[in-house]
Amino acid sequence: MIEYLNRLGVVLTEPPRASADSVAELAKYGVATIHEAMGRVGLMQPYMRPIYADATLAGAAVTVLAQPGDNWMLHVAVEQLREGDVLVVACTTECVDGMFGDLLATSLRARGARGLVIDAGVRDVATLTEMRFPVFAKAINAKGTVKATLGSVNVPVICAGALVTPGDAVIADSDGVVVVPRETVASVIEKCKAREANETSKRARLAAGELGLDMYNMRPALKAAGLTYIAAGEKANKDER
Amino acid sequence: MIEYLNRLGVVLTEPPRASADSVAELAKYGVATIHEAMGRVGLMQPYMRPIYADATLAGAAVTVLAQPGDNWMLHVAVEQLREGDVLVVACTTECVDGMFGDLLATSLRARGARGLVIDAGVRDVATLTEMRFPVFAKAINAKGTVKATLGSVNVPVICAGALVTPGDAVIADSDGVVVVPRETVASVIEKCKAREANETSKRARLAAGELGLDMYNMRPALKAAGLTYIAAGEKANKDER
Amino acid sequence: MIEYLNRLGVVLTEPPRASADSVAELAKYGVATIHEAMGRVGLMQPYMRPIYADATLAGAAVTVLAQPGDNWMLHVAVEQLREGDVLVVACTTECVDGMFGDLLATSLRARGARGLVIDAGVRDVATLTEMRFPVFAKAINAKGTVKATLGSVNVPVICAGALVTPGDAVIADSDGVVVVPRETVASVIEKCKAREANETSKRARLAAGELGLDMYNMRPALKAAGLTYIAAGEKANKDER
Amino acid sequence: MIEYLNRLGVVLTEPPRASADSVAELAKYGVATIHEAMGRVGLMQPYMRPIYADATLAGAAVTVLAQPGDNWMLHVAVEQLREGDVLVVACTTECVDGMFGDLLATSLRARGARGLVIDAGVRDVATLTEMRFPVFAKAINAKGTVKATLGSVNVPVICAGALVTPGDAVIADSDGVVVVPRETVASVIEKCKAREANETSKRARLAAGELGLDMYNMRPALKAAGLTYIAAGEKANKDER
Amino acid sequence: MIEYLNRLGVVLTEPPRASADSVAELAKYGVATIHEAMGRVGLMQPYMRPIYADATLAGAAVTVLAQPGDNWMLHVAVEQLREGDVLVVACTTECVDGMFGDLLATSLRARGARGLVIDAGVRDVATLTEMRFPVFAKAINAKGTVKATLGSVNVPVICAGALVTPGDAVIADSDGVVVVPRETVASVIEKCKAREANETSKRARLAAGELGLDMYNMRPALKAAGLTYIAAGEKANKDER
Amino acid sequence: MIEYLNRLGVVLTEPPRASADSVAELAKYGVATIHEAMGRVGLMQPYMRPIYADATLAGAAVTVLAQPGDNWMLHVAVEQLREGDVLVVACTTECVDGMFGDLLATSLRARGARGLVIDAGVRDVATLTEMRFPVFAKAINAKGTVKATLGSVNVPVICAGALVTPGDAVIADSDGVVVVPRETVASVIEKCKAREANETSKRARLAAGELGLDMYNMRPALKAAGLTYIAAGEKANKDER
Repeated sequence: MIEYLNRLGVVLTEPPRASADSVAELAKYGVATIHEAMGRVGLMQPYMRPIYADATLAGAAVTVLAQPGDNWMLHVAVEQLREGDVLVVACTTECVDGMFGDLLATSLRARGARGLVIDAGVRDVATLTEMRFPVFAKAINAKGTVKATLGSVNVPVICAGALVTPGDAVIADSDGVVVVPRETVASVIEKCKAREANETSKRARLAAGELGLDMYNMRPALKAAGLTYIAAGEKANKDER
Repeated sequence: MIEYLNRLGVVLTEPPRASADSVAELAKYGVATIHEAMGRVGLMQPYMRPIYADATLAGAAVTVLAQPGDNWMLHVAVEQLREGDVLVVACTTECVDGMFGDLLATSLRARGARGLVIDAGVRDVATLTEMRFPVFAKAINAKGTVKATLGSVNVPVICAGALVTPGDAVIADSDGVVVVPRETVASVIEKCKAREANETSKRARLAAGELGLDMYNMRPALKAAGLTYIAAGEKANKDER
Repeated sequence: MIEYLNRLGVVLTEPPRASADSVAELAKYGVATIHEAMGRVGLMQPYMRPIYADATLAGAAVTVLAQPGDNWMLHVAVEQLREGDVLVVACTTECVDGMFGDLLATSLRARGARGLVIDAGVRDVATLTEMRFPVFAKAINAKGTVKATLGSVNVPVICAGALVTPGDAVIADSDGVVVVPRETVASVIEKCKAREANETSKRARLAAGELGLDMYNMRPALKAAGLTYIAAGEKANKDER
Repeated sequence: MIEYLNRLGVVLTEPPRASADSVAELAKYGVATIHEAMGRVGLMQPYMRPIYADATLAGAAVTVLAQPGDNWMLHVAVEQLREGDVLVVACTTECVDGMFGDLLATSLRARGARGLVIDAGVRDVATLTEMRFPVFAKAINAKGTVKATLGSVNVPVICAGALVTPGDAVIADSDGVVVVPRETVASVIEKCKAREANETSKRARLAAGELGLDMYNMRPALKAAGLTYIAAGEKANKDER
Repeated sequence: MIEYLNRLGVVLTEPPRASADSVAELAKYGVATIHEAMGRVGLMQPYMRPIYADATLAGAAVTVLAQPGDNWMLHVAVEQLREGDVLVVACTTECVDGMFGDLLATSLRARGARGLVIDAGVRDVATLTEMRFPVFAKAINAKGTVKATLGSVNVPVICAGALVTPGDAVIADSDGVVVVPRETVASVIEKCKAREANETSKRARLAAGELGLDMYNMRPALKAAGLTYIAAGEKANKDER
Repeated sequence: MIEYLNRLGVVLTEPPRASADSVAELAKYGVATIHEAMGRVGLMQPYMRPIYADATLAGAAVTVLAQPGDNWMLHVAVEQLREGDVLVVACTTECVDGMFGDLLATSLRARGARGLVIDAGVRDVATLTEMRFPVFAKAINAKGTVKATLGSVNVPVICAGALVTPGDAVIADSDGVVVVPRETVASVIEKCKAREANETSKRARLAAGELGLDMYNMRPALKAAGLTYIAAGEKANKDER
């Protein structure tokens, strides 16, 4: 499907989607763990922030490629949304206008969508917060938009530095937004599981006062790299700065 | 009054102000609706953010043109404030110092002012939040300022990209800050009213599942523009990426 | 100790620290007051923000100089932490990766550390917020890091534009982060005390409606500087803009 | 004319313009001097930079208010340009698209326009440089634009933080862009003249080694403010850092 | 090949490349025209700038996915370069360190590479300029890097907001950097050819004073959209601002 | 001397300086090499750029701590300058005003100063360029400043993220600005010498086509780290994307 990247003027209908079950399973691990399980890749840029503190979302991506200052394609995309989807909006150029507000959120919720990820601005954030409609955006901005120029729906897009192909799993929480290609969801879940099992025991040991230096056996490598310990206390007493 | 734009060393006293009633009426519609009613103009830049999540303000502008790192004119402005005013601070150059804190807020509240819009920094934000004193600012910054160089009070200023003439209505909420010229407040209220009536019924229809594509009758224009629907599902099954 | 500034590959052990009592005394005044008492210097840059709204911290600095995308030295630093310390992390270059998460926070808490100041990113912020573990950071970012290259622990560093020498008092609240050199803590406390005594009475007078113009006796200096009052009201009535 | 600020959908024809002679006279002084003569105001923000190192321009403003990603109004504006004008483009929201290229420059030159000031992007900069067509812009960007939505021509606009009314004098050189209201051009020229006369003799005295401290008689004020001289040399010899 | 996007620890050898002839043909049209021919997509973000004013490059992409502060993979990539290639470097996170300098440039030139596009920093720019080695970069920065952690070579990457698959045509000039997928190079050339033929005659007509309004027949659409002409001259004479 | 860091209201006279000979020797190696020799530290942030393309400077630092929008202390500093010095200006807060212009440059040149490094703005850049007076600055900005509030001269300052103690060697070229503490200049020169000898032979080998992979013997470490080579060519032929 990558040959449709950034193609304008098209709507790809009914792309295969990451299954609702697998998305739900993935979402349990959180963005940081998923990103680690993927090999420390797959994140959108960190300027993508939730509009309220504890917003989270997870779903299969329906993508939009929008023109600057123009939210026409978001209306087209609504028809393509299915229960469990997340709307992911990229722009053909940098844009912080408020492309999305409470009317569109009402429409998305009516379609069963789980939230919005938008590399642009949103508005009506007080209402969206009351609705508990999760949005991860670049900006909050009342600036309205026109409906004049074609973009696309469900083509692969680059959103906040990440490639999103329609149907990919998109997970967002207070640590950011991660995109998991549909074909790799199952293997990423396996890696998350392994990683988390590992972390639980570590957390307990660290809480009990064990040092990471010992738990991870870092001392030999640090010594080999030449790390040197110097008693600062004595020194400092001599040369009060 | 525009000939006083950026004029230094003057205080214009008792400018005519948007009436308290009209400001209150305007404020009911919120920033996004007001901005739309004005024809999608009149907003300050979106970096102007509230210091606590649900801060809102509305009032007639008393303006300050301040020098960088210098809040002398804010003290001069306090005397010009009347019940229902909002203090709007612009600088002669980019500045993020903390020009305003809890002492000034105490003074503003004693004068009946409704809040602060400042294209610079503020501090004592924990106390301001406890006081529920609404501030929309460019930055939060403990950096203090001097009182050494003249600016002006109640001259027209450019604040965060918007012209503010003393007496204009200034409305701010979680979507941003909008400035309505005093002479146009009545007509903007009329347009807000029309717009909101319109939105209530739309919201209900969208919530019931009607598509914006149909409600706004967008399909003919999209077709005329050449929008093409392609079945992605079949395609994707053939060329697993 | 300044000759160790930015020195790589070393751990200075047991630097003299600002005493817990003096740090606690300082912290009562808050960042804005401390910064004023120091002569309006000592602040980190205002991009350093708390990860939850009411986070505050105070302690003696244990410093880290980290390489970009590499949190190895944070693990080394944990061993150097004592009850009442604050971990302060600077990087050898600009970096917004998520160098610190809930496992490290667990470890810091086990050592009695009071929080983290990091000129880079953090992650697991939902968990850190639940733990009420205070962090002041440049970014929130799920991006993980490696453990491959030596930096240093407890050398003087430049963190967000401020020099931090190990053992300095570091205080942070919603107004920002301030660094008080260990040797000057006592004198800064004295100045804070004087300043605050002064402010309490001022606040009461301002709340009662007295003007700063009068309370600070600003009118003569304003007049000398040439400030001119012009009746705007009359003017505006003539030339409706 | 200020009541037309940001008004959409209109073209104001034949606004009165600063005279060609007065603009030429002003331009001799350069942006820094003009800005000082105005009382240190009137500058656009410093992100407005020339596309080639020695570009300068001066003329009477024909203004455009453009929609994001849309250069339709620039074509409308061409017809309004007269010999000696400068085209000044503001946008209704932040935009860095390349709204202007060599075809429009060809058209502007054919109309006798002296250059472009644009709070957005430009492209074809190699050709523009060859043409020696001066442009001051926010960005260089190949991104093209549509022609779909009305803005305005010759309404007052806010461009890069400065109010520009059609017919104002606009002067730009390597120090930035300054806007002189049409009605004040004559008085600003007088102040520039006085200032420059003053500077020539100062330059000679400074070149001869006289100190500004003495020439401006700063020593008494510095002493009154409490400036203290301390012999660092002796100190440093004792406490080698 | 898209399944290798962001895959770490691999080198894909000998990817099919856009042919040298087709790249040369494309390059004649320049970045702005190519971007238009692609439907106004395919550009990297405009922060990618040449290190000297008239730098241009064109070639088939050999890609690098580098870790922050680590240029190890650039050395691995050199071996994969063939005559006519361009090295394209993306990072796993934001990074502005100087990953590339004159030694690597010497090596690239020895391999026949045509230049560098890097979403990070470069250094030794005086020497690179003397060598006339074209580089398009995010930053100029002396900061050096380590060689410690694996990234990849010749996997698809996202560089400055654009997807680059190994072998794609990459063209850069003073207007920016554009990426043309290998499979579409021939069709993009055809569209460039059509566009340019069209522009030559337009340029002549505009130079002769014809208005774009007439040449593009814009007047009917502007009228239909409601554009209104108002005589400003008369108005302004009455209400001198 | 570090106890004077950020101390306000003082001028430290005649600090010991890095010798002219040692500064000249250092400067031969260039910023990138010096920074490497120091262990990859000591750089100012990369936003510090020369005002003309081939500007370079080297000298012993005379420092200024300036207040925002106020260049009073620069005039005080002129008197402290000696032949071979470089003026280094830091501000107590972020500032981009044009604090320095051709009059001050004339004065600096009359004192024998070698240039300016300023974490703020400069103006009169056309004249400074004609004078070949090297300046490294954060911004070019015509905005003028006042002379109202005390800062300091020759106290240690943090300039663009680097600690500068009066008398330190400061070297700047097109790669950036590096600060070498006075006490370490001799040892840094030795390391530069070793590094450069090393680089000359490397450059020749790379120019002759030898790979860095072999010259630096990287293959074993890459293999140990798990780098895998995959023939992309064959793969790509099968699955045309």
